[in-house]
Amino acid sequence: MKYAIGIDVGGTSVKLGLVNTDGEITEIWEIPTRTEEGGKNVLPDIADSVKSKISEKRIADDVIGAGIGLPGPVDDEGIIRKAVNLHWERTFNVEDELSELLGVMKVKAGNDANVAALGEYWQGAGKDYGDMVMVTLGTGIGGGIIHHGQIFAGTTGAGGEIGHICLNPNEKIRCNCGNVGCFEQYASATGIARLTREELEASSDESELRHTEVTAKTMWDAVKNGDKLAIRVAERFGYYLGWGLSVIAGVVNPEVFVIGGGVSKAGDIILPYIRKNFEEHAFHACRDAQIVIATLGNSAGTLGAAKMVID
Amino acid sequence: MKYAIGIDVGGTSVKLGLVNTDGEITEIWEIPTRTEEGGKNVLPDIADSVKSKISEKRIADDVIGAGIGLPGPVDDEGIIRKAVNLHWERTFNVEDELSELLGVMKVKAGNDANVAALGEYWQGAGKDYGDMVMVTLGTGIGGGIIHHGQIFAGTTGAGGEIGHICLNPNEKIRCNCGNVGCFEQYASATGIARLTREELEASSDESELRHTEVTAKTMWDAVKNGDKLAIRVAERFGYYLGWGLSVIAGVVNPEVFVIGGGVSKAGDIILPYIRKNFEEHAFHACRDAQIVIATLGNSAGTLGAAKMVID
Repeated sequence: MKYAIGIDVGGTSVKLGLVNTDGEITEIWEIPTRTEEGGKNVLPDIADSVKSKISEKRIADDVIGAGIGLPGPVDDEGIIRKAVNLHWERTFNVEDELSELLGVMKVKAGNDANVAALGEYWQGAGKDYGDMVMVTLGTGIGGGIIHHGQIFAGTTGAGGEIGHICLNPNEKIRCNCGNVGCFEQYASATGIARLTREELEASSDESELRHTEVTAKTMWDAVKNGDKLAIRVAERFGYYLGWGLSVIAGVVNPEVFVIGGGVSKAGDIILPYIRKNFEEHAFHACRDAQIVIATLGNSAGTLGAAKMVID
Repeated sequence: MKYAIGIDVGGTSVKLGLVNTDGEITEIWEIPTRTEEGGKNVLPDIADSVKSKISEKRIADDVIGAGIGLPGPVDDEGIIRKAVNLHWERTFNVEDELSELLGVMKVKAGNDANVAALGEYWQGAGKDYGDMVMVTLGTGIGGGIIHHGQIFAGTTGAGGEIGHICLNPNEKIRCNCGNVGCFEQYASATGIARLTREELEASSDESELRHTEVTAKTMWDAVKNGDKLAIRVAERFGYYLGWGLSVIAGVVNPEVFVIGGGVSKAGDIILPYIRKNFEEHAFHACRDAQIVIATLGNSAGTLGAAKMVID
């Protein structure tokens, strides 16, 4: 059996996995991300950890290569411009650098959201589909496009970075990115909490959300309990997410949208709210796209990273 | 020298070209599109014309293949679902059918807007760039995405069919597609004429547009003459087109947008209106995309069609 190393780099820890060519994670481990001194230890630490795992397992001849997902834009050539969470400020070819540290191993790098999308495409919710768009609903909205089985990185590595599509130029509140009316201001976990607070202020209806901390999770729990005010919030969320997906469909015409991230943990209950609005706004030629929930959770990053070096 | 046949099929005529591998059109001719009886003669007519040209020129051994652009969605496999303007109602593989009629020649088919995009990418305004989005501003808005030098057809052949992205769900007027607030309701030639009429009604300002037929052409002519009311229309057009392009950039992060179609004949004067609004709404990682005017005119379709079979 041949293996690939899947590396998923976050701001506090790096998840590493030994993944066989059938897409099974046979070993998974973690190391801390040392971001001090401009994050200069991040890649050497990863290389040391990979090399000792390979020697421990005596699989040097069976390792095809290593794929690495990073929290920043990575282009098709493996060039990363910046990764704020790793304290990386320089522009460099991360594939070349890690490959050298590993002793000239095949290395492919990608943006973490794109890499997770590839994981879901290979072994998760996108498995039975062709072109796919993954939409990760967390603090913000991340995303990744898989086209012909490959990551669509875009010119500067920002392909599929859909969180900052402007849906509403008239929005008064500014997004963290500096613009207004960004997709993620409405349909992320943060957006759901905001829509909930707005709804609570705008009405005096009784709601279980008046007696708990307002989060995306408590909001969807309330929807599950039939809470009318929460259902109104779900409808507003669905309006923005369904409309946003219809716009994306109008550009790249995918076969499936895979919804991941914290918000997706609420499960299939979120889908009808999205679907209804998606169908209302999507151009007829793109309207058959499926919308499904991601299935791999945190493993998506490890699997997708490994898949980058598996043909 | 090797040649490819470039075929650009319209509702009234088919343009054919002999294109060498350097991208020069060495011969161009036209035949009528016979749409009667469900358009059953369209492909046989094309095949006959191509075969007689090849025999007339005695280049049978030098022809690599034929590419064909069609007014309808064509997927990666060459399957067309419908082409209203050709009276084609069936779903079939147009590549296989034309290839057989031509005596087993290599044939590639694509949607006409996508094929024109490939032409501009190969020999026109997109020549010096990587990933490109072409935006054709005519009666409606068409488009095509070129990724890694190839047409991005999408799942049902609707990739890059950006005219029906919904920018304004609150629009009262319905688009021809049945939805509301479509991109092409604002930024096409038809959209420009509508915005002009709205502006003429909303104000009593003197304008040369009160004394002429209102079209996209007369509107841009008035802008060139410094007509203040026309400049306001240009600003509204730029608002919608710039915003729309920023949304597309947020999905596919191209290096360049190439603006073609009738409206682009006004020339570079349209660009600052678009640019300003594009920059205001685009996510910073996508903001460096260039916006340029198409250069090939009607030849884009012939060249792009030929390019599909030239490596």
